[in-house]
Amino acid sequence: MKKETHFLIVGLGLLGGSYAQGLSAAGYEVDAIDLDEQNLQYAAQAGWIRQFSVEPDPALIQQADVLIFAVYPNTIVDWIRANQSWMKKDAILTDVTGVKRGIVETVQQFLRKDLEFIGAHPMAGKEVSGAKNSDSSLFHVANFIVTPTEKNTPRGIALAYDLAKTLGFAHLSELSLQQHDKMISFVSQLTHVIAVTLMNTHDNTHLAEYTGDSFRDLTRIAKINENLWTELFLLNQDYLLQDIDDFAAELQHFRKALAQGDSEEMKRLFRQSTQRRQQFDH
Amino acid sequence: MKKETHFLIVGLGLLGGSYAQGLSAAGYEVDAIDLDEQNLQYAAQAGWIRQFSVEPDPALIQQADVLIFAVYPNTIVDWIRANQSWMKKDAILTDVTGVKRGIVETVQQFLRKDLEFIGAHPMAGKEVSGAKNSDSSLFHVANFIVTPTEKNTPRGIALAYDLAKTLGFAHLSELSLQQHDKMISFVSQLTHVIAVTLMNTHDNTHLAEYTGDSFRDLTRIAKINENLWTELFLLNQDYLLQDIDDFAAELQHFRKALAQGDSEEMKRLFRQSTQRRQQFDH
Repeated sequence: MKKETHFLIVGLGLLGGSYAQGLSAAGYEVDAIDLDEQNLQYAAQAGWIRQFSVEPDPALIQQADVLIFAVYPNTIVDWIRANQSWMKKDAILTDVTGVKRGIVETVQQFLRKDLEFIGAHPMAGKEVSGAKNSDSSLFHVANFIVTPTEKNTPRGIALAYDLAKTLGFAHLSELSLQQHDKMISFVSQLTHVIAVTLMNTHDNTHLAEYTGDSFRDLTRIAKINENLWTELFLLNQDYLLQDIDDFAAELQHFRKALAQGDSEEMKRLFRQSTQRRQQFDH
Repeated sequence: MKKETHFLIVGLGLLGGSYAQGLSAAGYEVDAIDLDEQNLQYAAQAGWIRQFSVEPDPALIQQADVLIFAVYPNTIVDWIRANQSWMKKDAILTDVTGVKRGIVETVQQFLRKDLEFIGAHPMAGKEVSGAKNSDSSLFHVANFIVTPTEKNTPRGIALAYDLAKTLGFAHLSELSLQQHDKMISFVSQLTHVIAVTLMNTHDNTHLAEYTGDSFRDLTRIAKINENLWTELFLLNQDYLLQDIDDFAAELQHFRKALAQGDSEEMKRLFRQSTQRRQQFDH
């Protein structure tokens, strides 16, 4: 990326703030728009951003060579639709959203022909939010996934990779929108459904004193941002419903072995899960 | 416990070895029986045990005032049935098993009238096994649950509490056999069923590079000792089947909200799980 590349970050929470921190540390000019002035003031005082606004300010928008969207999924679509008229010719737009089809496909359909949207998913996060908790070193152990479509150009794709390298991501990869959303349904969304469901099965808060690491580890992600995750799940409804059904069928398979006292089948299932899980330890 | 109390540990693995370490450090005489001579040699060289045998040696058995059973659940029952004739009059027997009804009720039915079996569950463990991994400091952050029945005497119950205090457990409590097994079904066994089932749903080992902390935390316990856990699950079949059914019903409730795009119900479920899970953080 050229040193003069001018960035605008839309949504300066934990992730947007971490982008601002990393990009400013690398010497780039970064501006930001966020509804919450405290996020903006914090980042300005930290030297991560220069100009900022609590509204979609045309003056800020038209300066940007690259716009990074770190707001809720549906807000990205609405915001671009409402404000693309202000954007500089040949500007590149990218995002940080955890689902890709509903965002990338939708934006690419209505986007001005002289602009380009390249989807990306930095797989990083914390249990806390807001720019004051931002920390670009989060990225140094994280995956960055680029999700190009046939509407993307080599220039747009290269920008996404450059951005990931500048921010110091540990591992870069490329998936189609469908591959990404299918993968994220299983490794992230289904695990959240399971943790939430376990906490909702019984009110067992009186059992807290008896819970060990296994229960606590399994349910940590049951503390969840209800607005963000409802959007993410609904945008990936088809794959997630399929994964829930596959998991529920496998649960019934285990249940049947237990109900029949089929210890050989139970042992086989335990050996299989042990063997598969060991491959995640390398 | 009197300083002359003579202990015999049957099964000198991770837990049995940690008991031997803690009791010998407190000045008690400890002997041990284990099928694996390496466990015995390791503990003897560490000074945790004095006499030992790879077989149920009558000479060792008849010296013991307290026998601690740290072998597989069904082995406890068989071992006591086969060897109770050697035991000293008024000896007290206790165990470390993670389910209680099938063990305590069964043993108490056939046990000699001059002996007493008091059930106990030290809620401690590690992902590794064997005496060489024993560490009695495991107990200093763990719960110890005593599960008396109407067949137990104040002397037997007091022995279990004394043992827990001597070993330095962080928290002591008392539950009926039924209360214990119902609790353990939900906070431990169901979580293991879920982790195993998630690993068995798809062969997704090719997705390892994309998994974050949430997936890894949730599935860590899918690495599981198939022989031990098959016994534990079958001994708690009724409660565990009920918990699986309750969890499966709650999963279908979430699935329905997602399939119908009922974002209000999804948000309500997320808020409820968040609120409940927060109570486990205190």
